[in-house]
Amino acid sequence: MSETQAVFQNRTPPKPMPHDLALRSRAARVIPGGMWGHMSAKRLPPAFPQFFKSAEGTRLTDVDGNTYIDFMCAYGPMILGYNDPDVESAVNAQQVRMGIANGPGEAMVDLAELMVEMIPAADWAMFAKNGTDATTACVSIARAATKKRKILVATGAYHGAVPWCTPWPGGVVAEDRAHLICYAYNDVASLEAAAEEAGNDLAGIIASAFRHDARVDQEMPTSQFAGAVRAMADRNNAVLILDDVRAGFRLNLGGSWEPLGVQPDLSAWSKALGNGHPIAAITGREWLREAVQNVYVTGSFWYAAAPMVAAMTTLQKLRRLDAVTHMARLGQKLRDGIADQAATHGIGIRQTGPAQMPLVLFDNDDELEKGYLFTTTALEHGVYLHPWHNMFLSAAHNTEDIDRALEGTNAGFKAVADVCG
Amino acid sequence: MSETQAVFQNRTPPKPMPHDLALRSRAARVIPGGMWGHMSAKRLPPAFPQFFKSAEGTRLTDVDGNTYIDFMCAYGPMILGYNDPDVESAVNAQQVRMGIANGPGEAMVDLAELMVEMIPAADWAMFAKNGTDATTACVSIARAATKKRKILVATGAYHGAVPWCTPWPGGVVAEDRAHLICYAYNDVASLEAAAEEAGNDLAGIIASAFRHDARVDQEMPTSQFAGAVRAMADRNNAVLILDDVRAGFRLNLGGSWEPLGVQPDLSAWSKALGNGHPIAAITGREWLREAVQNVYVTGSFWYAAAPMVAAMTTLQKLRRLDAVTHMARLGQKLRDGIADQAATHGIGIRQTGPAQMPLVLFDNDDELEKGYLFTTTALEHGVYLHPWHNMFLSAAHNTEDIDRALEGTNAGFKAVADVCG
Repeated sequence: MSETQAVFQNRTPPKPMPHDLALRSRAARVIPGGMWGHMSAKRLPPAFPQFFKSAEGTRLTDVDGNTYIDFMCAYGPMILGYNDPDVESAVNAQQVRMGIANGPGEAMVDLAELMVEMIPAADWAMFAKNGTDATTACVSIARAATKKRKILVATGAYHGAVPWCTPWPGGVVAEDRAHLICYAYNDVASLEAAAEEAGNDLAGIIASAFRHDARVDQEMPTSQFAGAVRAMADRNNAVLILDDVRAGFRLNLGGSWEPLGVQPDLSAWSKALGNGHPIAAITGREWLREAVQNVYVTGSFWYAAAPMVAAMTTLQKLRRLDAVTHMARLGQKLRDGIADQAATHGIGIRQTGPAQMPLVLFDNDDELEKGYLFTTTALEHGVYLHPWHNMFLSAAHNTEDIDRALEGTNAGFKAVADVCG
Repeated sequence: MSETQAVFQNRTPPKPMPHDLALRSRAARVIPGGMWGHMSAKRLPPAFPQFFKSAEGTRLTDVDGNTYIDFMCAYGPMILGYNDPDVESAVNAQQVRMGIANGPGEAMVDLAELMVEMIPAADWAMFAKNGTDATTACVSIARAATKKRKILVATGAYHGAVPWCTPWPGGVVAEDRAHLICYAYNDVASLEAAAEEAGNDLAGIIASAFRHDARVDQEMPTSQFAGAVRAMADRNNAVLILDDVRAGFRLNLGGSWEPLGVQPDLSAWSKALGNGHPIAAITGREWLREAVQNVYVTGSFWYAAAPMVAAMTTLQKLRRLDAVTHMARLGQKLRDGIADQAATHGIGIRQTGPAQMPLVLFDNDDELEKGYLFTTTALEHGVYLHPWHNMFLSAAHNTEDIDRALEGTNAGFKAVADVCG
């Protein structure tokens, strides 16, 4: 145990969380490892709760009754606040009329029309449930449209959790990735090398809205990079796929690369689209309309009307509130406050990515000891931050939330300074 | 045009469906081909509506106000009736408290415990959204557990709609199926040949609960076949995966192969589990618990509590109602009535599969002309049947529904007899 670890362990009082621990113990018997995937608390410091019991606005309450100002937004889906009254009342009205049926309701057409109107690169839309459904369909559509096979993917990028893209090797065979070629995000030379390797078999290039890989500094796409991706796709009659699953509707309602003036051929959406209701979408340009019809994708719940009504309500409300500006402004206020606190405490940190999807990493913190201490202390002060995954602002956050959050972060920096200063 | 086609076309009055046609026309502009997947009305006779506006009990109403007794149950998810009051009130209570959060609610543990209790082959459970999520995860788990690669799959079986299993070739590359080896359902010799081809690289065998491939007669698994699959998996230290996505909870609440005395190592569930609320599940046996933890699968909405509450309520109510017996009994009543009518009209048909998941195919009907005329006529009489996909009974169907349905089928047989008799 390192000195920092020892101090950290001695310092952190065992927060009483009897209900959480009891549920973890029950879960350990009936769920492998007690939990799986991105919401496993094993990925977080020990004081973080695994189970929650209520959610309202920007507040989450765990099963032991601790309430937090939340800056994870359920890892992205929450964008208008938990239990948003407009979304929930629209969903309830739809659900009473019709949940599922032998076909969709009018809401599907309404939502497709709205997305085609709002998103300049969208000439059509279709819907699914998971972000992974959308990214996987985009790859299939690119291959069907071009009758080519190679897909360029940024090293370390997360595009979902099926064998072609899941970040762990378990259960993956080599063939699942036979036609993927890696490039480095924002690195045009590496992109060109990857394209050269693909030769005349280049079907598509997939890129995240920005580099939001876990545990490393985030990077906004440079104009040069986005332009090079677009030009390369054009030059090779290949498909530019923008993975806007995580960032979608937080950076720009028309698509995250709109400010760069670069339009993708296909976009994958999910997360925030329905303010937590399960929906994903694929939008694309006219020239791909025929090819889409040769790709068979479907799912039992993909035609359900309620999540489409949720998405309609969410998009319209985001537009009405000018929510992107609001989230960016409050994110910047949080970022500025954190930067001031870090300077005051003499602690080196890096804040990267868009302000509304912040990531805070500490200098000289490969083992995340500082990050764990910082977020654990903030949690004890009622502020739910993440030590190594990008966080999320929402339209429901207000300046008071940011002020309260900054009290938590200040306590966090003080704790880090006490141990490491 | 054949003579039958000509008569069929002349006979079918153009049912007025102005709202449906208007929506189809709007959809054609913003959705490639106007619709996709298993709910595309292009797969059905022209009189079938594409869009629905309400659903209650066993009744569906299309956007033109036509109400049907439904025998598709949204292609399986509906099992207690549309808008079931018990499920919906439990879901609403949960949704108000907490939709999504940064972790699951207690409902996940409750549901995992219930499935482990109800399903003899389940020592653990985990959850997803799509049936495809579950089947795909099962394949990954089998490979992770065995460190082998080959998966035996029945020719023509539907296990989902991603590249390794989707029924259309568009967007699929050869490598997606490099380690699949086909066998014929219920054919032990072909299974043995496939296993021989896999050699010492056999990771798993996937089988549907019964043979429910579209457009062909259904087949229940023989004891000999199910036993051979189990023995082959045991002999090769391979994983027996039961795809219970479509049949699950309609044949046996403990798993569709329970009556055969054959326990799978892994089971994939979805469709009826949440009475229409979006959820899938993977259950498995103890020896796979460790391997599961090496497979990274996740999704943005997989931890949402409301669909888990829906599933809890659905499973408990199915058990309380002895719903399987009810569905089998009413399905048999429908089947017997249809058999009598066909005999009376002198029309050769085949009714196959379990009575609660019926399929009616006509003899000498390769082009489905008789099937289309039959189901179109029934539709005009307010009965929603399917010409080539298995249908579904639910716990909400009652004897009056069956009597009414038999009026529709009698009209259908009369129409077929008039044309083809």
